[in-house]
Amino acid sequence: MQRYKLTIEYDGTPFFGWQSQKGGGAVQDVLEDAIEKLCGTRLRVQAAGRTDAGVHALGQVAHLDLENAMRTDRLRDALNALMRPHPVAIVEAQEAPDTFEARFSAIRRHYLYRIVNRRAPLTLDRGQAWLVNKPLDADAMHEAAQVLVGTHDFTTFRSTLCQAKSPVKTMEELSVSRYGEDIEIIARSRSFLHNQVRSIVGSLKLVGEGKWSRRDLERALAAKDRATCGPVSPPDGLYLLKVDYD
Amino acid sequence: MQRYKLTIEYDGTPFFGWQSQKGGGAVQDVLEDAIEKLCGTRLRVQAAGRTDAGVHALGQVAHLDLENAMRTDRLRDALNALMRPHPVAIVEAQEAPDTFEARFSAIRRHYLYRIVNRRAPLTLDRGQAWLVNKPLDADAMHEAAQVLVGTHDFTTFRSTLCQAKSPVKTMEELSVSRYGEDIEIIARSRSFLHNQVRSIVGSLKLVGEGKWSRRDLERALAAKDRATCGPVSPPDGLYLLKVDYD
Repeated sequence: MQRYKLTIEYDGTPFFGWQSQKGGGAVQDVLEDAIEKLCGTRLRVQAAGRTDAGVHALGQVAHLDLENAMRTDRLRDALNALMRPHPVAIVEAQEAPDTFEARFSAIRRHYLYRIVNRRAPLTLDRGQAWLVNKPLDADAMHEAAQVLVGTHDFTTFRSTLCQAKSPVKTMEELSVSRYGEDIEIIARSRSFLHNQVRSIVGSLKLVGEGKWSRRDLERALAAKDRATCGPVSPPDGLYLLKVDYD
Repeated sequence: MQRYKLTIEYDGTPFFGWQSQKGGGAVQDVLEDAIEKLCGTRLRVQAAGRTDAGVHALGQVAHLDLENAMRTDRLRDALNALMRPHPVAIVEAQEAPDTFEARFSAIRRHYLYRIVNRRAPLTLDRGQAWLVNKPLDADAMHEAAQVLVGTHDFTTFRSTLCQAKSPVKTMEELSVSRYGEDIEIIARSRSFLHNQVRSIVGSLKLVGEGKWSRRDLERALAAKDRATCGPVSPPDGLYLLKVDYD
Protein backbone atom coordinates (compact mmCIF):
# COMPACT_ATOMS: atom_id res chain seq x y z
CA MET A 1 0.00 0.00 0.00
CA GLN A 2 1.23 3.47 -0.84
CA ARG A 3 -0.12 6.74 0.52
CA TYR A 4 -0.29 9.80 -1.72
CA LYS A 5 -0.68 13.48 -0.96
CA LEU A 6 -2.79 15.23 -3.59
CA THR A 7 -2.83 19.01 -4.03
CA ILE A 8 -6.14 19.98 -5.59
CA GLU A 9 -7.51 23.08 -7.31
CA TYR A 10 -11.18 23.63 -8.02
CA ASP A 11 -13.80 26.12 -9.04
CA GLY A 12 -16.35 25.60 -6.28
CA THR A 13 -19.22 27.26 -8.18
CA PRO A 14 -20.97 24.11 -9.47
CA PHE A 15 -20.43 22.00 -6.33
CA PHE A 16 -22.28 21.41 -3.06
CA GLY A 17 -18.89 21.84 -1.37
CA TRP A 18 -15.97 19.51 -0.76
CA GLN A 19 -17.69 16.86 1.27
CA SER A 20 -19.29 13.84 -0.35
CA GLN A 21 -23.08 13.96 -0.64
CA LYS A 22 -25.67 11.28 -1.22
CA GLY A 23 -26.36 11.55 -4.93
CA GLY A 24 -23.01 13.21 -5.65
CA GLY A 25 -22.35 16.80 -6.63
CA ALA A 26 -19.48 17.39 -4.23
CA VAL A 27 -15.84 17.84 -5.19
CA GLN A 28 -14.97 14.73 -3.18
CA ASP A 29 -17.48 12.71 -5.25
CA VAL A 30 -15.84 13.81 -8.50
CA LEU A 31 -12.42 12.79 -7.20
CA GLU A 32 -13.61 9.48 -5.73
CA ASP A 33 -15.46 8.63 -8.97
CA ALA A 34 -12.21 9.18 -10.88
CA ILE A 35 -10.27 7.02 -8.41
CA GLU A 36 -12.87 4.26 -8.76
CA LYS A 37 -12.52 4.36 -12.54
CA LEU A 38 -8.75 4.20 -12.17
CA CYS A 39 -8.53 1.41 -9.54
CA GLY A 40 -11.78 -0.47 -9.86
CA THR A 41 -12.51 0.05 -6.13
CA ARG A 42 -14.37 2.77 -4.27
CA LEU A 43 -11.81 4.45 -2.03
CA ARG A 44 -12.25 7.35 0.34
CA VAL A 45 -10.05 10.41 0.30
CA GLN A 46 -9.62 12.72 3.27
CA ALA A 47 -9.09 16.44 2.83
CA ALA A 48 -7.48 19.15 4.92
CA GLY A 49 -10.52 21.43 4.77
CA ARG A 50 -14.21 20.87 4.10
CA THR A 51 -14.94 23.85 1.90
CA ASP A 52 -18.59 24.90 1.66
CA ALA A 53 -20.74 25.12 -1.46
CA GLY A 54 -19.35 27.70 -3.87
CA VAL A 55 -15.99 28.02 -2.07
CA HIS A 56 -12.90 27.55 -4.26
CA ALA A 57 -9.52 25.98 -3.68
CA LEU A 58 -6.11 26.67 -5.14
CA GLY A 59 -4.34 24.29 -2.78
CA GLN A 60 -6.73 21.88 -1.09
CA VAL A 61 -4.86 18.79 0.12
CA ALA A 62 -6.17 15.24 0.38
CA HIS A 63 -4.59 11.87 0.96
CA LEU A 64 -5.29 8.57 -0.71
CA ASP A 65 -4.02 5.01 -0.25
CA LEU A 66 -3.47 2.82 -3.29
CA GLU A 67 -3.07 -0.97 -3.14
CA ASN A 68 -0.78 -0.83 -6.17
CA ALA A 69 1.74 2.01 -6.25
CA MET A 70 1.78 4.28 -9.30
CA ARG A 71 4.18 6.93 -10.55
CA THR A 72 3.02 10.26 -9.14
CA ASP A 73 2.92 12.04 -12.51
CA ARG A 74 0.86 9.20 -13.99
CA LEU A 75 -1.52 9.29 -11.01
CA ARG A 76 -1.99 13.08 -11.42
CA ASP A 77 -2.54 12.88 -15.20
CA ALA A 78 -4.85 9.84 -14.99
CA LEU A 79 -7.08 11.41 -12.32
CA ASN A 80 -7.17 14.70 -14.22
CA ALA A 81 -8.24 12.91 -17.40
CA LEU A 82 -10.94 10.97 -15.52
CA MET A 83 -12.32 14.08 -13.76
CA ARG A 84 -13.05 15.91 -17.02
CA PRO A 85 -15.06 18.00 -17.63
CA HIS A 86 -15.47 18.97 -13.97
CA PRO A 87 -13.48 22.05 -12.93
CA VAL A 88 -11.32 20.05 -10.53
CA ALA A 89 -7.62 19.41 -11.07
CA ILE A 90 -4.85 17.58 -9.25
CA VAL A 91 -2.00 20.07 -9.50
CA GLU A 92 0.44 17.77 -7.74
CA ALA A 93 0.59 14.16 -6.50
CA GLN A 94 3.37 13.16 -4.12
CA GLU A 95 4.25 10.01 -2.22
CA ALA A 96 3.61 10.40 1.50
CA PRO A 97 4.45 8.31 4.56
CA ASP A 98 1.67 6.21 6.13
CA THR A 99 1.60 8.62 9.05
CA PHE A 100 0.58 11.54 6.81
CA GLU A 101 -3.02 12.67 7.31
CA ALA A 102 -4.23 15.54 5.12
CA ARG A 103 -6.46 16.79 7.90
CA PHE A 104 -4.66 15.97 11.11
CA SER A 105 -1.06 16.52 10.01
CA ALA A 106 -1.83 20.06 8.81
CA ILE A 107 -0.10 22.72 10.87
CA ARG A 108 -1.49 25.77 9.09
CA ARG A 109 -4.22 26.71 6.62
CA HIS A 110 -4.20 29.81 4.43
CA TYR A 111 -7.39 31.31 3.08
CA LEU A 112 -7.81 34.16 0.62
CA TYR A 113 -11.00 36.21 0.36
CA ARG A 114 -11.40 38.40 -2.73
CA ILE A 115 -13.63 41.47 -2.79
CA VAL A 116 -14.10 43.53 -5.96
CA ASN A 117 -15.02 47.00 -4.82
CA ARG A 118 -16.72 48.84 -7.66
CA ARG A 119 -20.10 49.78 -9.11
CA ALA A 120 -19.94 47.66 -12.26
CA PRO A 121 -21.12 44.04 -12.07
CA LEU A 122 -18.57 41.23 -12.34
CA THR A 123 -17.89 39.64 -15.71
CA LEU A 124 -14.69 37.55 -15.83
CA ASP A 125 -14.67 37.24 -12.01
CA ARG A 126 -18.29 36.20 -11.69
CA GLY A 127 -18.64 33.59 -8.95
CA GLN A 128 -14.99 34.15 -8.04
CA ALA A 129 -15.17 37.30 -5.92
CA TRP A 130 -17.62 39.27 -3.78
CA LEU A 131 -18.82 42.41 -5.51
CA VAL A 132 -19.21 45.28 -3.03
CA ASN A 133 -20.67 48.43 -4.58
CA LYS A 134 -19.95 50.94 -1.84
CA PRO A 135 -16.41 52.24 -1.38
CA LEU A 136 -14.57 50.33 1.36
CA ASP A 137 -11.73 51.72 3.46
CA ALA A 138 -9.29 48.79 3.25
CA ASP A 139 -6.84 50.44 5.66
CA ALA A 140 -9.54 50.71 8.33
CA MET A 141 -10.48 47.07 7.68
CA HIS A 142 -6.87 45.99 8.09
CA GLU A 143 -6.41 47.99 11.25
CA ALA A 144 -9.60 46.60 12.82
CA ALA A 145 -8.72 43.05 11.70
CA GLN A 146 -5.71 43.10 14.02
CA VAL A 147 -8.19 42.86 16.92
CA LEU A 148 -8.85 39.27 15.81
CA VAL A 149 -5.21 38.21 15.54
CA GLY A 150 -4.05 35.95 18.37
CA THR A 151 -5.89 33.41 20.50
CA HIS A 152 -9.58 34.16 21.02
CA ASP A 153 -12.95 32.56 21.57
CA PHE A 154 -14.44 32.98 18.07
CA THR A 155 -18.02 32.01 18.99
CA THR A 156 -19.29 35.22 17.35
CA PHE A 157 -17.63 34.25 14.08
CA ARG A 158 -18.65 30.64 13.68
CA SER A 159 -21.69 29.03 12.16
CA THR A 160 -24.28 27.67 14.55
CA LEU A 161 -23.73 24.41 12.63
CA CYS A 162 -20.03 24.34 13.55
CA GLN A 163 -19.06 20.99 15.05
CA ALA A 164 -15.70 21.94 16.51
CA LYS A 165 -15.43 21.12 20.22
CA SER A 166 -13.86 24.43 21.12
CA PRO A 167 -14.53 27.90 19.69
CA VAL A 168 -10.99 28.95 20.68
CA LYS A 169 -8.61 29.37 17.76
CA THR A 170 -5.36 31.21 17.17
CA MET A 171 -5.43 33.57 14.20
CA GLU A 172 -1.82 33.93 13.08
CA GLU A 173 -2.47 36.50 10.36
CA LEU A 174 -5.45 38.51 9.17
CA SER A 175 -4.44 41.12 6.63
CA VAL A 176 -6.45 43.31 4.28
CA SER A 177 -4.77 44.83 1.21
CA ARG A 178 -6.11 46.90 -1.66
CA TYR A 179 -4.85 46.53 -5.25
CA GLY A 180 -6.85 49.01 -7.28
CA GLU A 181 -10.50 47.88 -7.12
CA ASP A 182 -9.50 44.48 -5.66
CA ILE A 183 -9.36 43.93 -1.92
CA GLU A 184 -7.61 40.77 -0.74
CA ILE A 185 -8.00 39.39 2.74
CA ILE A 186 -5.53 36.73 3.89
CA ALA A 187 -6.35 34.60 6.93
CA ARG A 188 -3.84 32.16 8.38
CA SER A 189 -4.45 29.78 11.29
CA ARG A 190 -3.72 26.19 12.32
CA SER A 191 -7.40 25.49 11.76
CA PHE A 192 -10.64 27.38 11.26
CA LEU A 193 -14.17 27.13 12.56
CA HIS A 194 -17.11 26.58 10.21
CA ASN A 195 -17.82 29.84 8.31
CA GLN A 196 -15.16 31.64 10.34
CA VAL A 197 -13.49 33.47 7.45
CA ARG A 198 -16.78 34.44 5.80
CA SER A 199 -18.17 35.64 9.13
CA ILE A 200 -15.09 37.74 9.77
CA VAL A 201 -15.11 39.17 6.23
CA GLY A 202 -18.80 40.08 6.55
CA SER A 203 -17.98 42.01 9.73
CA LEU A 204 -14.86 43.64 8.27
CA LYS A 205 -17.00 44.88 5.38
CA LEU A 206 -19.08 46.83 7.93
CA VAL A 207 -15.84 48.39 9.17
CA GLY A 208 -14.84 49.22 5.57
CA GLU A 209 -18.18 50.97 4.99
CA GLY A 210 -17.73 52.98 8.18
CA LYS A 211 -20.75 51.33 9.84
CA TRP A 212 -18.55 49.64 12.43
CA SER A 213 -15.47 50.95 14.22
CA ARG A 214 -12.53 48.87 15.38
CA ARG A 215 -14.14 49.09 18.81
CA ASP A 216 -17.40 47.57 17.46
CA LEU A 217 -15.45 44.61 16.11
CA GLU A 218 -13.72 44.22 19.46
CA ARG A 219 -17.10 44.27 21.21
CA ALA A 220 -18.55 41.68 18.81
CA LEU A 221 -15.60 39.36 19.52
CA ALA A 222 -15.89 39.88 23.28
CA ALA A 223 -19.65 39.21 23.20
CA LYS A 224 -19.05 35.56 22.16
CA ASP A 225 -22.51 35.78 20.64
CA ARG A 226 -23.31 34.74 17.08
CA ALA A 227 -26.03 37.39 16.93
CA THR A 228 -23.43 40.18 17.06
CA CYS A 229 -21.67 39.00 13.87
CA GLY A 230 -22.03 40.99 10.65
CA PRO A 231 -23.88 39.34 7.72
CA VAL A 232 -21.82 36.37 6.52
CA SER A 233 -20.10 37.11 3.20
CA PRO A 234 -20.91 34.96 0.13
CA PRO A 235 -18.82 31.87 -0.69
CA ASP A 236 -17.83 33.27 -4.13
CA GLY A 237 -14.83 35.19 -2.79
CA LEU A 238 -13.33 32.46 -0.62
CA TYR A 239 -10.33 30.33 -1.64
CA LEU A 240 -8.49 27.65 0.34
CA LEU A 241 -5.06 28.82 -0.77
CA LYS A 242 -2.58 26.46 0.84
CA VAL A 243 -2.13 23.96 3.65
CA ASP A 244 1.18 23.66 5.46
CA TYR A 245 2.66 20.45 6.90
CA ASP A 246 5.80 19.81 8.90
CA MET B 1 -26.87 65.50 -28.44
CA GLN B 2 -24.18 64.29 -26.09
CA ARG B 3 -21.38 61.86 -26.91
CA TYR B 4 -20.23 59.36 -24.27
CA LYS B 5 -17.10 57.26 -23.98
CA LEU B 6 -17.85 53.86 -22.47
CA THR B 7 -15.14 51.63 -20.99
CA ILE B 8 -16.34 48.04 -21.19
CA GLU B 9 -15.31 44.76 -19.59
CA TYR B 10 -16.52 41.38 -20.78
CA ASP B 11 -16.00 37.67 -20.58
CA GLY B 12 -15.84 36.80 -24.28
CA THR B 13 -16.56 33.08 -23.77
CA PRO B 14 -20.29 33.06 -24.60
CA PHE B 15 -20.10 35.58 -27.45
CA PHE B 16 -19.49 35.45 -31.19
CA GLY B 17 -17.10 38.36 -30.67
CA TRP B 18 -17.58 42.09 -30.32
CA GLN B 19 -19.19 42.83 -33.64
CA SER B 20 -22.96 42.74 -34.09
CA GLN B 21 -24.32 39.63 -35.81
CA LYS B 22 -27.61 38.91 -37.50
CA GLY B 23 -29.57 37.09 -34.81
CA GLY B 24 -27.49 38.57 -32.00
CA GLY B 25 -24.98 36.83 -29.79
CA ALA B 26 -22.27 39.48 -30.02
CA VAL B 27 -21.17 41.79 -27.22
CA GLN B 28 -22.25 44.78 -29.31
CA ASP B 29 -25.77 43.30 -29.59
CA VAL B 30 -26.04 43.00 -25.80
CA LEU B 31 -24.97 46.61 -25.37
CA GLU B 32 -27.20 47.95 -28.15
CA ASP B 33 -30.18 45.98 -26.79
CA ALA B 34 -29.62 47.65 -23.41
CA ILE B 35 -29.35 51.09 -25.02
CA GLU B 36 -32.58 50.48 -26.91
CA LYS B 37 -34.35 49.55 -23.68
CA LEU B 38 -32.97 52.69 -22.07
CA CYS B 39 -33.71 55.19 -24.89
CA GLY B 40 -36.45 53.60 -26.89
CA THR B 41 -34.37 53.86 -30.09
CA ARG B 42 -31.92 51.49 -31.73
CA LEU B 43 -28.55 53.24 -31.67
CA ARG B 44 -25.20 52.01 -32.93
CA VAL B 45 -22.08 52.03 -30.82
CA GLN B 46 -18.59 52.00 -32.26
CA ALA B 47 -15.75 50.24 -30.50
CA ALA B 48 -11.98 50.63 -30.52
CA GLY B 49 -11.33 46.97 -31.30
CA ARG B 50 -13.39 44.20 -32.85
CA THR B 51 -12.46 41.33 -30.59
CA ASP B 52 -13.05 37.83 -31.99
CA ALA B 53 -15.25 35.09 -30.56
CA GLY B 54 -14.00 34.03 -27.12
CA VAL B 55 -11.66 37.01 -26.71
CA HIS B 56 -12.09 39.03 -23.50
CA ALA B 57 -11.84 42.70 -22.66
CA LEU B 58 -10.90 44.53 -19.51
CA GLY B 59 -10.88 47.93 -21.19
CA GLN B 60 -12.71 47.92 -24.51
CA VAL B 61 -13.85 51.43 -25.43
CA ALA B 62 -16.94 52.43 -27.40
CA HIS B 63 -18.72 55.70 -28.05
CA LEU B 64 -22.38 56.45 -28.06
CA ASP B 65 -24.50 59.54 -28.85
CA LEU B 66 -27.59 60.25 -26.78
CA GLU B 67 -30.32 62.67 -27.85
CA ASN B 68 -31.00 63.48 -24.18
CA ALA B 69 -27.96 63.87 -21.96
CA MET B 70 -27.75 61.73 -18.82
CA ARG B 71 -25.51 61.76 -15.79
CA THR B 72 -22.58 59.44 -16.51
CA ASP B 73 -22.98 57.37 -13.33
CA ARG B 74 -26.68 56.88 -14.08
CA LEU B 75 -25.89 55.87 -17.67
CA ARG B 76 -23.32 53.32 -16.45
CA ASP B 77 -25.63 51.85 -13.79
CA ALA B 78 -28.69 51.78 -16.07
CA LEU B 79 -26.85 50.00 -18.89
CA ASN B 80 -25.31 47.54 -16.43
CA ALA B 81 -28.73 46.73 -14.99
CA LEU B 82 -30.20 46.27 -18.48
CA MET B 83 -27.34 44.01 -19.68
CA ARG B 84 -27.88 41.47 -16.90
CA PRO B 85 -27.26 38.54 -16.84
CA HIS B 86 -24.75 38.81 -19.67
CA PRO B 87 -21.12 38.97 -18.53
CA VAL B 88 -20.66 42.47 -19.93
CA ALA B 89 -20.16 45.56 -17.77
CA ILE B 90 -19.67 49.27 -18.32
CA VAL B 91 -16.88 50.04 -15.89
CA GLU B 92 -16.91 53.74 -16.72
CA ALA B 93 -19.02 56.20 -18.69
CA GLN B 94 -17.58 59.64 -19.45
CA GLU B 95 -18.75 62.63 -21.44
CA ALA B 96 -16.73 63.04 -24.62
CA PRO B 97 -16.46 65.77 -27.26
CA ASP B 98 -18.25 65.24 -30.60
CA THR B 99 -14.87 64.72 -32.23
CA PHE B 100 -14.10 61.66 -30.10
CA GLU B 101 -14.22 58.40 -32.04
CA ALA B 102 -13.56 55.21 -30.07
CA ARG B 103 -11.90 53.61 -33.06
CA PHE B 104 -10.23 56.46 -34.94
CA SER B 105 -9.14 58.62 -32.01
CA ALA B 106 -7.26 55.71 -30.38
CA ILE B 107 -3.52 56.22 -30.32
CA ARG B 108 -2.54 52.93 -28.71
CA ARG B 109 -4.06 49.54 -27.89
CA HIS B 110 -2.78 47.20 -25.19
CA TYR B 111 -3.42 43.47 -25.34
CA LEU B 112 -2.62 40.83 -22.73
CA TYR B 113 -2.26 37.16 -23.57
CA ARG B 114 -2.31 34.70 -20.65
CA ILE B 115 -0.72 31.26 -20.85
CA VAL B 116 -0.94 28.82 -17.94
CA ASN B 117 2.06 26.52 -18.28
CA ARG B 118 1.40 23.32 -16.35
CA ARG B 119 0.21 19.73 -16.68
CA ALA B 120 -3.04 20.08 -14.72
CA PRO B 121 -6.17 21.22 -16.58
CA LEU B 122 -7.61 24.65 -15.88
CA THR B 123 -10.37 25.05 -13.32
CA LEU B 124 -10.95 28.64 -12.19
CA ASP B 125 -9.19 29.98 -15.31
CA ARG B 126 -11.10 27.83 -17.76
CA GLY B 127 -11.82 29.82 -20.93
CA GLN B 128 -9.65 32.63 -19.56
CA ALA B 129 -6.15 31.41 -20.41
CA TRP B 130 -4.35 29.05 -22.79
CA LEU B 131 -3.21 25.88 -21.10
CA VAL B 132 0.19 24.75 -22.42
CA ASN B 133 1.32 21.41 -20.98
CA LYS B 134 4.98 21.40 -22.05
CA PRO B 135 7.43 23.61 -20.17
CA LEU B 136 8.02 26.90 -21.97
CA ASP B 137 11.18 29.00 -21.74
CA ALA B 138 9.64 32.44 -21.18
CA ASP B 139 13.03 34.17 -21.32
CA ALA B 140 13.71 32.73 -24.77
CA MET B 141 10.19 33.81 -25.84
CA HIS B 142 10.82 37.34 -24.61
CA GLU B 143 14.20 37.55 -26.29
CA ALA B 144 12.82 36.30 -29.63
CA ALA B 145 9.78 38.59 -29.35
CA GLN B 146 12.06 41.61 -29.61
CA VAL B 147 12.55 40.70 -33.29
CA LEU B 148 8.93 41.82 -33.84
CA VAL B 149 9.23 45.15 -32.04
CA GLY B 150 9.35 48.15 -34.36
CA THR B 151 7.84 48.75 -37.80
CA HIS B 152 7.41 45.61 -39.91
CA ASP B 153 5.29 44.03 -42.59
CA PHE B 154 3.28 41.59 -40.46
CA THR B 155 1.76 39.62 -43.37
CA THR B 156 2.95 36.37 -41.74
CA PHE B 157 1.08 37.21 -38.56
CA ARG B 158 -2.32 38.27 -39.88
CA SER B 159 -5.40 36.31 -40.73
CA THR B 160 -6.11 35.79 -44.41
CA LEU B 161 -9.47 37.43 -43.57
CA CYS B 162 -7.78 40.62 -42.38
CA GLN B 163 -9.27 43.67 -44.09
CA ALA B 164 -6.58 46.21 -43.20
CA LYS B 165 -5.20 47.98 -46.26
CA SER B 166 -1.60 47.66 -45.15
CA PRO B 167 0.13 44.82 -43.31
CA VAL B 168 2.69 47.28 -41.97
CA LYS B 169 2.34 48.02 -38.25
CA THR B 170 4.59 49.37 -35.53
CA MET B 171 4.84 47.11 -32.48
CA GLU B 172 5.77 49.38 -29.60
CA GLU B 173 6.14 46.65 -26.99
CA LEU B 174 6.05 42.86 -26.99
CA SER B 175 7.11 41.46 -23.66
CA VAL B 176 6.90 37.98 -22.16
CA SER B 177 7.06 37.52 -18.38
CA ARG B 178 6.70 34.47 -16.18
CA TYR B 179 4.97 34.59 -12.76
CA GLY B 180 5.15 31.03 -11.43
CA GLU B 181 3.10 28.87 -13.82
CA ASP B 182 1.56 31.95 -15.48
CA ILE B 183 3.13 33.50 -18.56
CA GLU B 184 1.89 36.95 -19.54
CA ILE B 185 2.49 38.47 -22.94
CA ILE B 186 1.87 42.19 -23.37
CA ALA B 187 1.52 43.64 -26.87
CA ARG B 188 1.25 47.37 -27.44
CA SER B 189 0.71 49.10 -30.79
CA ARG B 190 -1.30 51.93 -32.33
CA SER B 191 -3.42 49.28 -34.01
CA PHE B 192 -3.32 45.57 -34.72
CA LEU B 193 -4.08 43.34 -37.70
CA HIS B 194 -6.75 40.64 -37.50
CA ASN B 195 -5.44 37.73 -35.40
CA GLN B 196 -2.06 39.43 -35.07
CA VAL B 197 -1.56 38.84 -31.34
CA ARG B 198 -2.82 35.25 -31.45
CA SER B 199 -0.62 34.52 -34.48
CA ILE B 200 2.41 35.97 -32.74
CA VAL B 201 1.68 34.09 -29.50
CA GLY B 202 1.30 30.81 -31.41
CA SER B 203 4.73 31.36 -32.94
CA LEU B 204 6.31 32.44 -29.64
CA LYS B 205 5.03 29.23 -28.08
CA LEU B 206 7.16 27.31 -30.61
CA VAL B 207 10.14 29.35 -29.44
CA GLY B 208 9.27 28.58 -25.80
CA GLU B 209 9.16 24.85 -26.55
CA GLY B 210 12.56 25.04 -28.26
CA LYS B 211 11.09 24.11 -31.65
CA TRP B 212 11.88 27.52 -33.09
CA SER B 213 14.90 29.76 -32.50
CA ARG B 214 14.90 33.53 -32.52
CA ARG B 215 16.32 33.19 -36.02
CA ASP B 216 13.30 31.09 -37.11
CA LEU B 217 10.96 33.83 -35.91
CA GLU B 218 13.02 36.39 -37.80
CA ARG B 219 12.79 34.26 -40.94
CA ALA B 220 9.01 33.83 -40.57
CA LEU B 221 8.60 37.63 -40.29
CA ALA B 222 10.87 38.25 -43.28
CA ALA B 223 9.02 35.66 -45.40
CA LYS B 224 5.83 37.82 -45.33
CA ASP B 225 4.01 34.55 -45.89
CA ARG B 226 1.06 33.42 -43.76
CA ALA B 227 2.09 29.79 -44.27
CA THR B 228 5.24 30.33 -42.18
CA CYS B 229 3.27 31.39 -39.08
CA GLY B 230 3.01 29.03 -36.10
CA PRO B 231 -0.45 27.62 -35.23
CA VAL B 232 -2.68 30.49 -34.09
CA SER B 233 -3.24 30.40 -30.31
CA PRO B 234 -6.79 30.04 -28.94
CA PRO B 235 -8.91 33.11 -28.13
CA ASP B 236 -9.26 32.07 -24.45
CA GLY B 237 -6.03 33.76 -23.36
CA LEU B 238 -6.52 37.10 -25.14
CA TYR B 239 -7.67 40.29 -23.40
CA LEU B 240 -8.09 43.79 -24.82
CA LEU B 241 -6.57 45.50 -21.80
CA LYS B 242 -6.70 49.19 -22.51
CA VAL B 243 -7.03 51.78 -25.25
CA ASP B 244 -5.16 55.07 -25.06
CA TYR B 245 -6.41 58.41 -26.37
CA ASP B 246 -4.77 61.81 -26.54
